[in-house]
Amino acid sequence: MEIKVLKNILSVNEQIAQKNRGLLDKNNIFTINIMSSPGAGKTSLILQTIKRLKDKTRIGVIEGDVSSSVDAETVGKEGVPVIQINTGGGCHLDANMVNNALSNLPLPDIDLLFIENVGNLICPASFALGDHKRVIVSSIPEGHDKPLKYPLMFHEANIVLLNKIDLLPYVAFDMKAFSQAIRNINEKLEIIPISCTTGQGIETWVSWLVAQMRKKNST
Amino acid sequence: MEIKVLKNILSVNEQIAQKNRGLLDKNNIFTINIMSSPGAGKTSLILQTIKRLKDKTRIGVIEGDVSSSVDAETVGKEGVPVIQINTGGGCHLDANMVNNALSNLPLPDIDLLFIENVGNLICPASFALGDHKRVIVSSIPEGHDKPLKYPLMFHEANIVLLNKIDLLPYVAFDMKAFSQAIRNINEKLEIIPISCTTGQGIETWVSWLVAQMRKKNST
Repeated sequence: MEIKVLKNILSVNEQIAQKNRGLLDKNNIFTINIMSSPGAGKTSLILQTIKRLKDKTRIGVIEGDVSSSVDAETVGKEGVPVIQINTGGGCHLDANMVNNALSNLPLPDIDLLFIENVGNLICPASFALGDHKRVIVSSIPEGHDKPLKYPLMFHEANIVLLNKIDLLPYVAFDMKAFSQAIRNINEKLEIIPISCTTGQGIETWVSWLVAQMRKKNST
Repeated sequence: MEIKVLKNILSVNEQIAQKNRGLLDKNNIFTINIMSSPGAGKTSLILQTIKRLKDKTRIGVIEGDVSSSVDAETVGKEGVPVIQINTGGGCHLDANMVNNALSNLPLPDIDLLFIENVGNLICPASFALGDHKRVIVSSIPEGHDKPLKYPLMFHEANIVLLNKIDLLPYVAFDMKAFSQAIRNINEKLEIIPISCTTGQGIETWVSWLVAQMRKKNST
């Protein structure tokens, strides 16, 4: 009797994520999945980036939240296409939610797409969406021990933006311990300190982003 | 043919939570489930409370984290019994984890037990542990829109501690919008502004806690 061995079985989520990736690539849309704790500054980062890039790059945004549409309303004021996903209790975006959102966006008019994931340092790291790069926003008031406590998300990220650096004088935050904890998880992971309030570091982030887009488009 | 109708079926988690509650009540242990975003100040709150109450009340602590034992080590320095639960990827504590922790604590020597849940504003709200009261720690740098975006957790809480009030001069936080959003979810939910750094509001919190303990013990 022949035994059938099934290899490389993809989860349904992974299958839809690959479909999303195909759709994004077909439309030349460079896509960033932004993940963080609640209130670390994902929306502020998107707003700052739109301000600096919107004259050169056509940007679109998918906002993910358990409830409400406040983020989509805020981003919408910048005049970019935006879709709000409400997970209705779900603790992360999944590929199918993003697939639905993509079918509601003017894809031929977008070069750069931000997917703002649900504020959660755990579950979003386990669900592929079809994006090209994963950004984690960590923030000074959350403390330097976050990589120790939530290692998977830092392991999966392509870059760490350490936001609210303007609050450094007012809270106990050990920069060396934070960097070391990240090095222990992923030695090559770059950390860019930023402040979406003062603008510090935003140019460095935008340069990284533009370089990644060019690299992708030249392949 | 008679149709069998099953009513009031409890989930396995709910069943174990009730068992935990029984065990806690039998031992006269008043138990608090502390929930928040990552880095909002749950451990700092426990430390501040231990400092103020440890001469009068025998305290125990269960620390919940995806990974690491840094919080249990910090709390253990205060000389109270502490158990660290690592969920190994799980985004919340469940009743069975707490049941295991309880069997490793000296229950006859504890009057007040803190369960520090995993840092996550979503999933912990859906899992009963057997505790008597649920505390949500929100913090100023997270922003005033958290109740809008994560309504279930605020709906399930018995009190809101608004931590890091010392950072109010340095960030944009609309206190009126925060209070109003909470009122819309749960009109009677009390908000106590605190700072675990300066000690502001901690006495008010401890008074609330002691009053709740007395109320429980007098029933």
